[in-house]
Amino acid sequence: MSQEINIPELVDERYQKLQSDVLYHAMIVQSEVLRVSGEFLHQRGFIQIMPVIISPVTDPLRHFTGRAQVEYYGQVYQLTKSMIFHKRIALLAHERIFAFSPNIRLESADRAGTGRHLFEFSQLDLEVKGASRDEIMDLGEDLFIYTLGQVKERCAGQLGFFNRDLRVPARPFARVAYKDVFGQYGEDFENIVSQQHAEPVWVVDMCVEAREFYDREYPDRPGFLVDMDLLYPEGFGEALSGGEREYTLENILRRIKMTKVDLDNFKLYLEVSARGLPPSAGFGVGLERLTRFICGLPRVEDAVLFPKVPGKLSL
Amino acid sequence: MSQEINIPELVDERYQKLQSDVLYHAMIVQSEVLRVSGEFLHQRGFIQIMPVIISPVTDPLRHFTGRAQVEYYGQVYQLTKSMIFHKRIALLAHERIFAFSPNIRLESADRAGTGRHLFEFSQLDLEVKGASRDEIMDLGEDLFIYTLGQVKERCAGQLGFFNRDLRVPARPFARVAYKDVFGQYGEDFENIVSQQHAEPVWVVDMCVEAREFYDREYPDRPGFLVDMDLLYPEGFGEALSGGEREYTLENILRRIKMTKVDLDNFKLYLEVSARGLPPSAGFGVGLERLTRFICGLPRVEDAVLFPKVPGKLSL
Repeated sequence: MSQEINIPELVDERYQKLQSDVLYHAMIVQSEVLRVSGEFLHQRGFIQIMPVIISPVTDPLRHFTGRAQVEYYGQVYQLTKSMIFHKRIALLAHERIFAFSPNIRLESADRAGTGRHLFEFSQLDLEVKGASRDEIMDLGEDLFIYTLGQVKERCAGQLGFFNRDLRVPARPFARVAYKDVFGQYGEDFENIVSQQHAEPVWVVDMCVEAREFYDREYPDRPGFLVDMDLLYPEGFGEALSGGEREYTLENILRRIKMTKVDLDNFKLYLEVSARGLPPSAGFGVGLERLTRFICGLPRVEDAVLFPKVPGKLSL
Repeated sequence: MSQEINIPELVDERYQKLQSDVLYHAMIVQSEVLRVSGEFLHQRGFIQIMPVIISPVTDPLRHFTGRAQVEYYGQVYQLTKSMIFHKRIALLAHERIFAFSPNIRLESADRAGTGRHLFEFSQLDLEVKGASRDEIMDLGEDLFIYTLGQVKERCAGQLGFFNRDLRVPARPFARVAYKDVFGQYGEDFENIVSQQHAEPVWVVDMCVEAREFYDREYPDRPGFLVDMDLLYPEGFGEALSGGEREYTLENILRRIKMTKVDLDNFKLYLEVSARGLPPSAGFGVGLERLTRFICGLPRVEDAVLFPKVPGKLSL
């Protein structure tokens, strides 16, 4: 899978992009996004925790093949694909936590052209002890409204540069059921639903086959999960992904066994769960995608200093 | 080098620590440190950038053996040991940048007992285009005074819990020359100088053998560098490390060749430098050590949710 890399050409391209007005303004927007989203969460009583980069346990992710791991004193550490398990465990210390969490997902090269995938990106990742999905969706709506509103105000010059008429949405956001939109549009439902709307729209109640084992199954509706995605309008696709979580050891074990993943990979998480972890709900917001959406850029890599486009050598 | 790990015991210990009052209060302090240091830098016109986790090029670090890397499409990516090169390159886009940057350094197990080392930690890492060392030291003093002052005010309850009488230092901080303190105290000078002081103290003008190739050598004083460390008082050791940087391709090449590192490891950075990078100065502040210092804790791992103690299996 190795490829001939023309290093001088690659460096030339990045050197020019780094000096471009597009990146200059996108970086200002991203910096403000970090500032105002953090400000909002501090006001809501959240504690900011540091991200986790390597750990024996990380998000398995569905249908995901690329492996990123390092060995250290005979132990294998995975690079974080998402902080889901560490967020849950951190709730032993504080009831409301968030992190700006870098994720490494060694995507296959055929995702290079989507304009939405990077093999390194960051999430604003949060989790709330005892929260219901509806409470966390309310929080998500408030977070987006606050962040978009503040950025619109503070970055008027940037939005002017991008010629972007950013609409600050109103609550409540529209809501569609996964089963309905998947039934109607099939695999491409995200793009289609996103394109149909002028404001963000929730997709709720995924089916178990569409998600990882840690999202909570309805006790009275087997096969469906108490979870959700938020889609940006105008075809910008997924904004946020989250839900309530399985928290009893019994349910976690049952759900893992329904998938093809190896129980052994989650040994540490299962040991912690056996000692008791609280119910919780939370979500993760892709920061590069949020910056791209605010600026109205064609591709997510346009909003990143050192973009990691799937399959391509990157600085 | 593999070891027998008693997983239930390890999980028991962490499960208890996560529910401890010490960690509860330390996390509040750390969250405020992130907030107020970011606030200070935004006020000074800095742009917050995202950290870099994997790249073909990272800080070589002196006498450093542990290798953390992943392969992806035939290319080798190093886990970031520090963002030094990416900070410098990011100055093509903005003149003042900072990041909360996770670093992976696979330290040898004999550092487990220092109370100051973790194999995963985070730095507040910043760089300023065209700045002199004195300017960046002024900024560093202001940053510490603001951060300590604000945290003292906002976290009075936490400092009370830790029974910590935190002193907010006054400008200018004391300053000693590396040559003098190394000559007087030898290898252990950091501890000794740190213990002798009640307020932070600068160590300036390291010798080339003590530092990486990227810190700038005095043109008129070969063998000495225009750089500095800041030491905490009361024996807490290093707070910050930084300096002016080499920026001409000629000097960078000359300095690399003085060390034993392979030029090939820096191919991408050299290609960018050949196209022109501005002079700059900057520093990195270890965030876990700062939290430890503020709380007056015995060990840095006391202030971390998922501490990576050298040689030990960690969640």
